[in-house]
Amino acid sequence: MSNLADVKAGLRSLHIETPSWAYGNSGTRFKVFPQQGVPRTPFEKISDAAQVHRFTGTAPSVALHIPWDRVDDFAGLAAYAHDQGVRIGAINSNVFQDPDYMLGSVTNPDPRVRRKAVQHLLECVDIMDATGSRDLKLWFSDGLNYPGQDDLRDRQDRLAEALREVYDRLGQGQRMLLEYKLFEPAFYATDVPDWGTSYAHCVELGPKAAVCIDTGHHAPGTNIEFIVAFLLRAGRLGAFDFNSRFYADDDLMAGAADPFQLFRIMYEIARADALGPDIAFMLDQCHNIEPKIPAVLRSVMNVQEATAKALLVDRDALRSAQQTGDVLGANAVLMDAYNTDVRPLLADLRAESGLDPDPTAAYRRSGYAERIIAERAGGQQAGWGA
Amino acid sequence: MSNLADVKAGLRSLHIETPSWAYGNSGTRFKVFPQQGVPRTPFEKISDAAQVHRFTGTAPSVALHIPWDRVDDFAGLAAYAHDQGVRIGAINSNVFQDPDYMLGSVTNPDPRVRRKAVQHLLECVDIMDATGSRDLKLWFSDGLNYPGQDDLRDRQDRLAEALREVYDRLGQGQRMLLEYKLFEPAFYATDVPDWGTSYAHCVELGPKAAVCIDTGHHAPGTNIEFIVAFLLRAGRLGAFDFNSRFYADDDLMAGAADPFQLFRIMYEIARADALGPDIAFMLDQCHNIEPKIPAVLRSVMNVQEATAKALLVDRDALRSAQQTGDVLGANAVLMDAYNTDVRPLLADLRAESGLDPDPTAAYRRSGYAERIIAERAGGQQAGWGA
Amino acid sequence: MSNLADVKAGLRSLHIETPSWAYGNSGTRFKVFPQQGVPRTPFEKISDAAQVHRFTGTAPSVALHIPWDRVDDFAGLAAYAHDQGVRIGAINSNVFQDPDYMLGSVTNPDPRVRRKAVQHLLECVDIMDATGSRDLKLWFSDGLNYPGQDDLRDRQDRLAEALREVYDRLGQGQRMLLEYKLFEPAFYATDVPDWGTSYAHCVELGPKAAVCIDTGHHAPGTNIEFIVAFLLRAGRLGAFDFNSRFYADDDLMAGAADPFQLFRIMYEIARADALGPDIAFMLDQCHNIEPKIPAVLRSVMNVQEATAKALLVDRDALRSAQQTGDVLGANAVLMDAYNTDVRPLLADLRAESGLDPDPTAAYRRSGYAERIIAERAGGQQAGWGA
Amino acid sequence: MSNLADVKAGLRSLHIETPSWAYGNSGTRFKVFPQQGVPRTPFEKISDAAQVHRFTGTAPSVALHIPWDRVDDFAGLAAYAHDQGVRIGAINSNVFQDPDYMLGSVTNPDPRVRRKAVQHLLECVDIMDATGSRDLKLWFSDGLNYPGQDDLRDRQDRLAEALREVYDRLGQGQRMLLEYKLFEPAFYATDVPDWGTSYAHCVELGPKAAVCIDTGHHAPGTNIEFIVAFLLRAGRLGAFDFNSRFYADDDLMAGAADPFQLFRIMYEIARADALGPDIAFMLDQCHNIEPKIPAVLRSVMNVQEATAKALLVDRDALRSAQQTGDVLGANAVLMDAYNTDVRPLLADLRAESGLDPDPTAAYRRSGYAERIIAERAGGQQAGWGA
Repeated sequence: MSNLADVKAGLRSLHIETPSWAYGNSGTRFKVFPQQGVPRTPFEKISDAAQVHRFTGTAPSVALHIPWDRVDDFAGLAAYAHDQGVRIGAINSNVFQDPDYMLGSVTNPDPRVRRKAVQHLLECVDIMDATGSRDLKLWFSDGLNYPGQDDLRDRQDRLAEALREVYDRLGQGQRMLLEYKLFEPAFYATDVPDWGTSYAHCVELGPKAAVCIDTGHHAPGTNIEFIVAFLLRAGRLGAFDFNSRFYADDDLMAGAADPFQLFRIMYEIARADALGPDIAFMLDQCHNIEPKIPAVLRSVMNVQEATAKALLVDRDALRSAQQTGDVLGANAVLMDAYNTDVRPLLADLRAESGLDPDPTAAYRRSGYAERIIAERAGGQQAGWGA
Repeated sequence: MSNLADVKAGLRSLHIETPSWAYGNSGTRFKVFPQQGVPRTPFEKISDAAQVHRFTGTAPSVALHIPWDRVDDFAGLAAYAHDQGVRIGAINSNVFQDPDYMLGSVTNPDPRVRRKAVQHLLECVDIMDATGSRDLKLWFSDGLNYPGQDDLRDRQDRLAEALREVYDRLGQGQRMLLEYKLFEPAFYATDVPDWGTSYAHCVELGPKAAVCIDTGHHAPGTNIEFIVAFLLRAGRLGAFDFNSRFYADDDLMAGAADPFQLFRIMYEIARADALGPDIAFMLDQCHNIEPKIPAVLRSVMNVQEATAKALLVDRDALRSAQQTGDVLGANAVLMDAYNTDVRPLLADLRAESGLDPDPTAAYRRSGYAERIIAERAGGQQAGWGA
Repeated sequence: MSNLADVKAGLRSLHIETPSWAYGNSGTRFKVFPQQGVPRTPFEKISDAAQVHRFTGTAPSVALHIPWDRVDDFAGLAAYAHDQGVRIGAINSNVFQDPDYMLGSVTNPDPRVRRKAVQHLLECVDIMDATGSRDLKLWFSDGLNYPGQDDLRDRQDRLAEALREVYDRLGQGQRMLLEYKLFEPAFYATDVPDWGTSYAHCVELGPKAAVCIDTGHHAPGTNIEFIVAFLLRAGRLGAFDFNSRFYADDDLMAGAADPFQLFRIMYEIARADALGPDIAFMLDQCHNIEPKIPAVLRSVMNVQEATAKALLVDRDALRSAQQTGDVLGANAVLMDAYNTDVRPLLADLRAESGLDPDPTAAYRRSGYAERIIAERAGGQQAGWGA
Repeated sequence: MSNLADVKAGLRSLHIETPSWAYGNSGTRFKVFPQQGVPRTPFEKISDAAQVHRFTGTAPSVALHIPWDRVDDFAGLAAYAHDQGVRIGAINSNVFQDPDYMLGSVTNPDPRVRRKAVQHLLECVDIMDATGSRDLKLWFSDGLNYPGQDDLRDRQDRLAEALREVYDRLGQGQRMLLEYKLFEPAFYATDVPDWGTSYAHCVELGPKAAVCIDTGHHAPGTNIEFIVAFLLRAGRLGAFDFNSRFYADDDLMAGAADPFQLFRIMYEIARADALGPDIAFMLDQCHNIEPKIPAVLRSVMNVQEATAKALLVDRDALRSAQQTGDVLGANAVLMDAYNTDVRPLLADLRAESGLDPDPTAAYRRSGYAERIIAERAGGQQAGWGA
């Protein structure tokens, strides 16, 4: 069995970044159901994110989304975050909501629109400079709804050109994370639909570019841990957007739909000793019908539990069974770890760090939920702004 | 080969109902891109739908959606439709956008919410009485996002109870159409997820209940024409919501994603001699990035073309090849019809009915598009209201 | 929390039937890799199955497959089983391997072939009489590879006619289990592709007919526990064929691919208090690359573990959270049970029954594997005979 | 509209390679149904393939599969092919049927097995030398059935090492085609599961390595024409294995399941002016229930028809509509070509080349089918040898 001290050390090195938009209202194309106490400003979102870190001790950074989180003074926002005990994480660009982007942003046939989109991406790097953020996360909704609508290959040329300009703007220690997604909102073809496309562009760009895996962005049946292992081997795994799904990009809480899959993913991370800061472990979720902060707490804990199980895998025993072709034995080693109840271990770990062993209960007792419901009445609640 | 007169007679018996909401703005959860000239009232939607009928001669009815199309005087709306050359088709209920329905409507654990939902459905029957509509179309977004969130079986009991009350309210000649959908907006379980669920409830309810097949509401790999054939055999196919998809419920134009599938579906209809009024052939689409009326025109024509091909199948030759186990021969008979270019035949048919052989060009020349853009500036454009 | 005695009582009432063919060689269309010690006769298969029961105490019956398990004296085979401590379970018909069935069996366009197929099914009922088997399990590979190949609707008529004749032959206390499957070996349309088709035929046939759910026979994204709940409510769930899959009908060990799904399925069983004999809980797996008896042991234990977790769900707390719309709370109740390590509980249960707490280790120590490898050299190993 | 002469020139430049194994018996894991007249030797397979070329004029080469097509004198086999009017195409390796390969070939944990597998691949290059074949086609069934069974990343290392050794053995003008496949026969993880994996290895290997796209080897919803366009842009599209599928790797006749998809794929080829010899356009199909030579004829004609439609696309009009963001207009240009009945054009083209305009009828009249049924009675029919 794994050494318990090693397991705990591994868990302590795991940091999970929460996204500012998870604290705002979200929904489907059918309806956004508003909730009480939802933030109205980027500052309030950071305040909420800080609660998650306060009770879990493992969520020290917050991803921003521009323009949803645009403020006049980004350095001030970063300072505010610092005061709350957290810091600014990845800067997420948004080139999918301006009316100009109806037919695409950086791959739009219209050069004026492409220029506008690239300018936005460059602005995001400015914001990275101002906030001290390391990562520029790029997700493009660009794609087609109908065959023939635009030229698939030309769009790759345009994409490459835009990425190159932005890449060249990156400063020392800054990175570009290129996310892929099978479909939605484009329903026939998406310009960065799979890890292969993202990987190929990253390799072409250079060492500062890496792939971001959103666990909900794959075709049915895709083996995500294979992609994780492959990209780790190639040195091109930059980040995760964790969430879970039964069907499409459902954006449910990480670990809610298939906890065994999350465990297998985290096992590949553990096996590569890659729990450290080189990979950004982010959440990207929509809490459409459940309260937001408790849902983020639960998601963070789900990732922690999957990681704990992954770290518990007896890698020597596993390798031995694998090398001798013992199919059932090797599988059993993995399942022994998965079937372990790691909640006591995580409770211990929290207690050792001076945290409440039960983050959800501690949050509930804190009165924060009641306070924000009272304080945030009125004003415009944050949301996707669709 | 099929007799040309029979093919034309079959095509003349095909009526396609267009939905009022296809003329309004729509989009994804990421963005609704507004378009110019979009209707602001149910009357303007009917006016647009009338254009589609005017140029195709095959779209004589308009489905309404309540409350999106609520007016004070439904009889007046029906009269207006009549003046425009069309009539009111199915009444579509909406129990998914009121905040009360966040956790379900007729299957909600809260009896107050269930009561409210049933009242809405009963109101829809009142509107049927007022407009002379035959069909009540029920789609429930009810479902769960997380395992355990509610009891799957209790929800079926509640569903059955609500359906029974509404069914018993139906008048002479009125029908209930129960639509199913795999997922979205519920992401873990949907209360009416497949044709089997809808069928079982319909059989329990009685002869006025029938299944509505939305062609975009299936799991990947589902053979839709099998369902069509099965329900026709069982006498429980009540309606179609035509649209097309590559991934999920993409709501693209019918025939745009897989024209061969649409042909196979229409072949089962033709084979059962079921092109008449007993089945409501409706569109249910979202024209997120393309102009709405031209997109509906194209969709109607796509369904017509698929139907023409289906009618061209040499059923005697097909049966003969099938009976003798001639796999390639039987497939070839079907493909011969599919590979035929039926556009000249449909142009002839239009000309024989005094229509322009090219509905799209005729619509373009009519100046209607320019007129509504000018007239409908200002006001609140119709949309899904999410 | 659930009462531990109740949990144990529930687990004791769970009987898992293993299939004779799981002990024989199997493979893919690419290759059947033979293994050592594989049975050569139905008697040897029963002997292997008896080992699984000997070490788990929960697998007291063996399903037969005709003609693979045809013997001259079925009563003798039943007596042999009895001597080994097990009994004959379901009789599985095979109308997919005779050359006559290339284009279908009971749905074949050729009436001679249909007659032959029905005769085989009737023979299976004779074997039920001879062996004391209760259940006739019907799976039809019937379907089409190409559109047009045969008439979808005629095939339903033929299917209904064949089922009726066989149903009417069933004796007192005998049942018909109708299995469905999305695809394979038919690649365009399958005549019983989904639970809806099976259900509709069962309802038409009468109370002795019920649906068999093979957990690997669904389209991607299908919510299987929904089907379980629905069929339980309708009184038409007759049996399971447990196995697991990542892609298609992979026939991996139950619980190997998605243990959380298996738990959710067993929860619906537990919630309906349906762990008793009315539902046949069978395995249907192919151990292509792993040793067969240990793989069946593991599968049986996986089903037990999922069931133990399902029984541990605090149903009062769950219902309370569900009734109040506490989405996260209800989900948490379910997950608390799932996250519990139930292996100690099952070890206790085994010890209480005089069994070794670790069936796999006990089997390994028994020397049975070495003995059959030695004894079964030579002869024709059992397999699918494809 | 496109110039007719250009369309015909394009069609004349299209060569389709047929696989030797398509003429032998094939089936599913459930059953291989034998057919009459099936070849017993590689020579008889080539004779059958020559018939396809004789009647279509577009299938001048035959892919071999080693060891299924192993002969003592490969130069003699090549000469025989030449006499029949065809030539040897790609050499397909087989490292999936020897018992040693149960847990993998080039990625097997056992170095002895890896060595054996690499030796086989090197032997295939020898056969290329002997037959004048240009392409080594590599498909690996290597993968895992169970999580943990082996180390995903180590297997990539082993794969890279094996590919490197074989790549370095390639002679002047020889190429390596690396095929990918989502699943089957491995059911949890496949070592080359997607185009990204194949592409990354090819880039690492060098310019002689290119990706082979089997149209049936993707996850549901994958946009294959996107991959085609991407690989063409990257200069790494080496070959196609055409076939069609509704579900998994069904290996049905090309164009049978989704003719519109085949058209879109061929459009990307036409758009890149890539119909020439640099890409190997191969079939890879299983004619389980239909006669083999007629099925291959039909498949070749289906690819020709899709290509003809692709060449008919008015690329100027398309580009113009695309550039102006005319979504419906651009789609209409594509659909105009797709909806054209190109069978008369292809009949003309055949007549111009001295061929019968109807290859299927000409083949039927030739008496070849009757002759091989008579001549090939007795002996061991060719098949997959599973």
